[in-house]
Amino acid sequence: MAVEADAPRMEFDVVGHRRVRPDGVDKVTGRARFGADISAPGMLTAKILRSPHAHARINSIDTSKAEAMVGVHAVVTSADFPDEHVPRGERDTLVNVMAREKAFYDGHAVAAVAAMDAETAQDALELIVVDYEVLPHVTDVVAAMAPDAPVLHDTLFTRGVDPKPDKPSNVAKRVEMGRGDVEAGFAEADIVIERTFRTEATHQGYIEPHACLANIGADGRGEIWVCTQGHYMIRNTVAALLGIELSKLRVTASEIGGGFGGKTTVFAEPVAAALSRKAGLPVKLVMDRTEVFRATGPTSSTAAWVKIGVKNDGTITAGDIELKYQGGAFRGSPIDFGCMSAFACYDIDNIRMVGWDVVCNRPKQAAYRAPGAPMSTFVVESVVQELAERIGMDPVDMRLKNAARNGSDSAYGPKFGTIGLVETLEAAKAHANYTAPLGANQGRGIACGFWFNFGGETCTSLNVQTDGTVALMVGTPDIGGSRASMCMMAAEELGIEYERVHAIVGDTTSLGYNDTTEGSRVTFSSGMATIKSARAAIEVMRARAAMIWEIPVDAVVWEKGHAKPAGPNAGDFEPMSLADIAAKSGATGGPIAGHAEVNADGAGVSFATHLVDVEVDPETGAVKVLRYTVAQDAGKAIHPGYVVGQFQGGAAQGIGWALNEEYVYDDMGRLQNAGFLDYRVPVASDLPNIDTVIVEVPNTGHPYGVRGVGETSIVPPLAAIANAVSAAAGVRLTDLPMSPPKVLAAIDAQKD
Amino acid sequence: MAVEADAPRMEFDVVGHRRVRPDGVDKVTGRARFGADISAPGMLTAKILRSPHAHARINSIDTSKAEAMVGVHAVVTSADFPDEHVPRGERDTLVNVMAREKAFYDGHAVAAVAAMDAETAQDALELIVVDYEVLPHVTDVVAAMAPDAPVLHDTLFTRGVDPKPDKPSNVAKRVEMGRGDVEAGFAEADIVIERTFRTEATHQGYIEPHACLANIGADGRGEIWVCTQGHYMIRNTVAALLGIELSKLRVTASEIGGGFGGKTTVFAEPVAAALSRKAGLPVKLVMDRTEVFRATGPTSSTAAWVKIGVKNDGTITAGDIELKYQGGAFRGSPIDFGCMSAFACYDIDNIRMVGWDVVCNRPKQAAYRAPGAPMSTFVVESVVQELAERIGMDPVDMRLKNAARNGSDSAYGPKFGTIGLVETLEAAKAHANYTAPLGANQGRGIACGFWFNFGGETCTSLNVQTDGTVALMVGTPDIGGSRASMCMMAAEELGIEYERVHAIVGDTTSLGYNDTTEGSRVTFSSGMATIKSARAAIEVMRARAAMIWEIPVDAVVWEKGHAKPAGPNAGDFEPMSLADIAAKSGATGGPIAGHAEVNADGAGVSFATHLVDVEVDPETGAVKVLRYTVAQDAGKAIHPGYVVGQFQGGAAQGIGWALNEEYVYDDMGRLQNAGFLDYRVPVASDLPNIDTVIVEVPNTGHPYGVRGVGETSIVPPLAAIANAVSAAAGVRLTDLPMSPPKVLAAIDAQKD
Repeated sequence: MAVEADAPRMEFDVVGHRRVRPDGVDKVTGRARFGADISAPGMLTAKILRSPHAHARINSIDTSKAEAMVGVHAVVTSADFPDEHVPRGERDTLVNVMAREKAFYDGHAVAAVAAMDAETAQDALELIVVDYEVLPHVTDVVAAMAPDAPVLHDTLFTRGVDPKPDKPSNVAKRVEMGRGDVEAGFAEADIVIERTFRTEATHQGYIEPHACLANIGADGRGEIWVCTQGHYMIRNTVAALLGIELSKLRVTASEIGGGFGGKTTVFAEPVAAALSRKAGLPVKLVMDRTEVFRATGPTSSTAAWVKIGVKNDGTITAGDIELKYQGGAFRGSPIDFGCMSAFACYDIDNIRMVGWDVVCNRPKQAAYRAPGAPMSTFVVESVVQELAERIGMDPVDMRLKNAARNGSDSAYGPKFGTIGLVETLEAAKAHANYTAPLGANQGRGIACGFWFNFGGETCTSLNVQTDGTVALMVGTPDIGGSRASMCMMAAEELGIEYERVHAIVGDTTSLGYNDTTEGSRVTFSSGMATIKSARAAIEVMRARAAMIWEIPVDAVVWEKGHAKPAGPNAGDFEPMSLADIAAKSGATGGPIAGHAEVNADGAGVSFATHLVDVEVDPETGAVKVLRYTVAQDAGKAIHPGYVVGQFQGGAAQGIGWALNEEYVYDDMGRLQNAGFLDYRVPVASDLPNIDTVIVEVPNTGHPYGVRGVGETSIVPPLAAIANAVSAAAGVRLTDLPMSPPKVLAAIDAQKD
Repeated sequence: MAVEADAPRMEFDVVGHRRVRPDGVDKVTGRARFGADISAPGMLTAKILRSPHAHARINSIDTSKAEAMVGVHAVVTSADFPDEHVPRGERDTLVNVMAREKAFYDGHAVAAVAAMDAETAQDALELIVVDYEVLPHVTDVVAAMAPDAPVLHDTLFTRGVDPKPDKPSNVAKRVEMGRGDVEAGFAEADIVIERTFRTEATHQGYIEPHACLANIGADGRGEIWVCTQGHYMIRNTVAALLGIELSKLRVTASEIGGGFGGKTTVFAEPVAAALSRKAGLPVKLVMDRTEVFRATGPTSSTAAWVKIGVKNDGTITAGDIELKYQGGAFRGSPIDFGCMSAFACYDIDNIRMVGWDVVCNRPKQAAYRAPGAPMSTFVVESVVQELAERIGMDPVDMRLKNAARNGSDSAYGPKFGTIGLVETLEAAKAHANYTAPLGANQGRGIACGFWFNFGGETCTSLNVQTDGTVALMVGTPDIGGSRASMCMMAAEELGIEYERVHAIVGDTTSLGYNDTTEGSRVTFSSGMATIKSARAAIEVMRARAAMIWEIPVDAVVWEKGHAKPAGPNAGDFEPMSLADIAAKSGATGGPIAGHAEVNADGAGVSFATHLVDVEVDPETGAVKVLRYTVAQDAGKAIHPGYVVGQFQGGAAQGIGWALNEEYVYDDMGRLQNAGFLDYRVPVASDLPNIDTVIVEVPNTGHPYGVRGVGETSIVPPLAAIANAVSAAAGVRLTDLPMSPPKVLAAIDAQKD
């Protein structure tokens, strides 16, 4: 019988096995439809005019010539985005979507055109005359905090400081958290290391540029087809910016060619919608790669200072960190997550985390896998490694000595439940790669990482068809195999074959609100809702069997996909399969379904330990990754193949962040490398096979023990690689990316 | 508080008022997307090759030249539709969709091509070589029953006759039903009239030809976008014919440019799907008007004999009827409905109905508003009128004397519940048109009509958005304003404004199974499911309010869109509106929704009385309709505007059927008038304003008293017009259509 179990289920028939992915055939045959793969009768093509200046006052925009051009159906500027009705929380989004008084970064949208075709739209853009007054700009986080820095927003006053500032600045807020007495802690330490670090902005590097089709009618009813991680988020934001009721806007998520957090916010969709509403026709808007780099969200670039003390026995006595994260032109860098996660792997009595949220003339940052955590973890794990070396202790053993454990008070407050950091450290130490011999110019690095994982609002519907197959509708775009995982959980719960369950991602009208696919929440919370939907359907099927058998529903149990008479009626009737009951559904009351609407609590935090060997070429500074091992706690790996893919993908992206990826600005504040030729992500030939160990410490907050897996895997690589490169080069590297010139300079500086 | 009421609700805030139709703006601005208004990347265009012969053996089909043509991606014939796995009930559909050994009618599909564009597909059709052996054919229902008629199917043996036939024929079955002793009844009668009648096949005449886009992947997963009254029916049939699991096929219904029953079956969709699967690309298939006439379903043409006896006081003592309905090339004419409805308006002790289901070389018939009933009603109501004239009784009074009333045994068996025939007769008699003066060559006709109305399987989901608007998903394509009606019922039940509810028609994967939009079932059964969904959502909202107020849920009532504390807690808190509760839903457990899956019982039958005045031009035989009045029982008119539209539309189509519409075949069995120029439907200038009286006798089987309204309105016009024309011409007309030549011939024959 389907009942809520207190402890996670441990025995499975379907879950835990690698199954064929449902989107596989469509993706290899080209049938899968991505953001740009839709069209509508009468469709127009939109193009966006973008600021060539990093910081400029917009004195006027003359669109008259563009509007008069044959084939142009609509031109919009900020005048088409009235702000009176826009909630305060959406104002920055409004300004980011379409510049108003000022352009805040190179690439900031200032106008847009919808025309009969792309060439006409492009030509029309060139007829728009913008009168800019170029202003001094700043793109560096530390420079932006200087008292004499050019100030972006004259309404931005630093929060969280005392006394309150009397003039605007680029510092949006200061946060401080911690516990104990860090000075007393440092006094207890035998060794204290203090260092500063820098990281550069990186882009999520999804293959598919942003694309959407908006179709807004004269009555305000509309539809948007869009590549996104959160179509409900798109709906809510477009509705807020354009003043449309939520029920009137139906948003459908396309297949997605990568997101990694970068598709959790709006950029072009409100522009396409405004153009469509103005033109009275459907409007397609597809960014090119340059636009993706210039105008969508990369990560924060950061500057940090850290000080950590340790006793000779390996006990960390205190940690103190100050983090400066620029979030681009608008407040809202992930500074809180950076502070909260900095020391989250450790149970340290005395810690202090101070953070600064800074704006500068760059595109507004967006989430990128575990937003904020890789940078602060880089800082802490670099120094922890150095401390282990200084006291001559095995770096895993020192981490084990201080590791957060079941029931520890977390560094950011709440007590941990059942967690698996220790198990990942032990798995890394037990791995053959931990003792593989190293040659000349080679070094080994290790680092731990943490991510919170989230739950959130989630709805699913499950329809049992009369042929015994099952249609499952989830509301979370599938960025990493969630349709397969949901089908597996539904099949497991119903007791039928995986191949008989087929999942779709429902649109915003067909299914209740779902939070965005982010925070590693989907397998956990959509999985929970799927299990609840399946259990609800089982209740219906038990009742139908009871009706057919004319026995009380309490005398029917559900086992392995069958209703069976039980109790006093045990053995009275042959068991009926799900397909048997489904075939009779018309005659027993109608279609069989199960639905769930939840706000999922109980997401389990996850930890990982990464182990890496690199070789540094002392002549060029080039770094080659020799071996890479990820040991991470998945709670329960529903589909191990996808879990391994997440582990490997996070590591690969972290390696790119550590070694090569960066935003390069010229002295006019213009992005110089807005393309994959100049912005260098790791390619297959840059990487070894990434070894993985799936650790499974069940999350007690989920029926199957699931934790999120998609984000933790990008947290350790920056530090792990830095530790390995530092070991190989014989000098501590503190600035990312550790590109050949920087590594070579560090080696050369050491020789001097 | 939301509870199931025993008696239908009688007081309404939203229901019963004319509200703005939600699809109106889209339809007048051209934004509404119909069957042909979708495309997909790489899409092919399909064309179907059709038999030019009414009856022919197909010896061979050579598609090799077409297949070799540049731009042709797939060619299919019956060889691509294996029949082994097809359930018996779908075999005729399989053969109708693509001819196998024989072509059974002019226009029968024999092959199809998917090509890069329409021109290429058309050229390819011409390269397909079909070796036909032309066979004798028959298109007339009586001729098809003759012993020496060409036999279509050598496997068709008449059912329902004793002894069982030893050879095949064109008679699929004989049915007989009735009660009492008709011979004894006729013996009691003072006057007995016996007559024969004929009606011709008519087409539903929807403006939008059949159109679909099929996209079936290499893994058997697929999608179909289609103009249909039943996308679940399309799914189930295509799945059965092509061997696809129900959950793997997602079918979406487009907006529909008319159906009237003619879009309740498949014609081209399995062909498009088979081509798509073979080509590995999306395939669009749009019929032209000629194909719609030649190859989709018109009504049965019929022949009938009837005998009715009446006492001088107006009591009908007996009725005997024999009906012959040809259903085109396959069994399944609506002969049962014809028999069941023939005497359904009357409470007669002695009745007998005999029916024959006949096949002939015409396209397979399809439903058309109240399938089968207009023809048998034409027969009975013509003679009832004549009997009233013969005994000198007011025709309404005579009908009132015999009318079926609350609790009568229906002519087809079950006892009637609360019904409204008497009220419609009284309304007609009370109408000013009943006593309007008539001039020369003018005549008045009256006739009653009946339709069963159905319930059936229905699912709805209702999602309450955080801004207090409501998204409603129904599964029944909207052919007559059902989205408006559903929004009204949801708003009524929830206690919010109509304008805050927005409905969509969900696809077959997003929502559980829904029976087709037919049988006048939608406002009744989708309405019932909508009300249930709203009540389920209200239960959730009461629980949320109880949680917020920290009082028992039993102490919360729902009144006029608000949760209110009640009982001991009455007055403790301010009422909370739906929007208030919705805004807090994230913090109180997640999204708020209500769902319903039902197999709706309790559909209420409906009756109408039509009153018409015509003028016949004795020189030409042309008939002009002067006045037309519909009085029909709607149970409860949810949206009176749409109800009036249904009344008027049914009457207009019935007028066309009575006066002009017919299928004209040449002696080769080829349809001669496959287009709107030669197949003449009434246009605006042919019709007067059609007056309507909405009678409301609530259906006790529905919470709001709803009965279906879409079909009954086409049942009386054939007889009403015939009665009026007969009165004006001074001669009884018995053959439809009463086109000018026939009327003139009848007048001239009388003069002789």
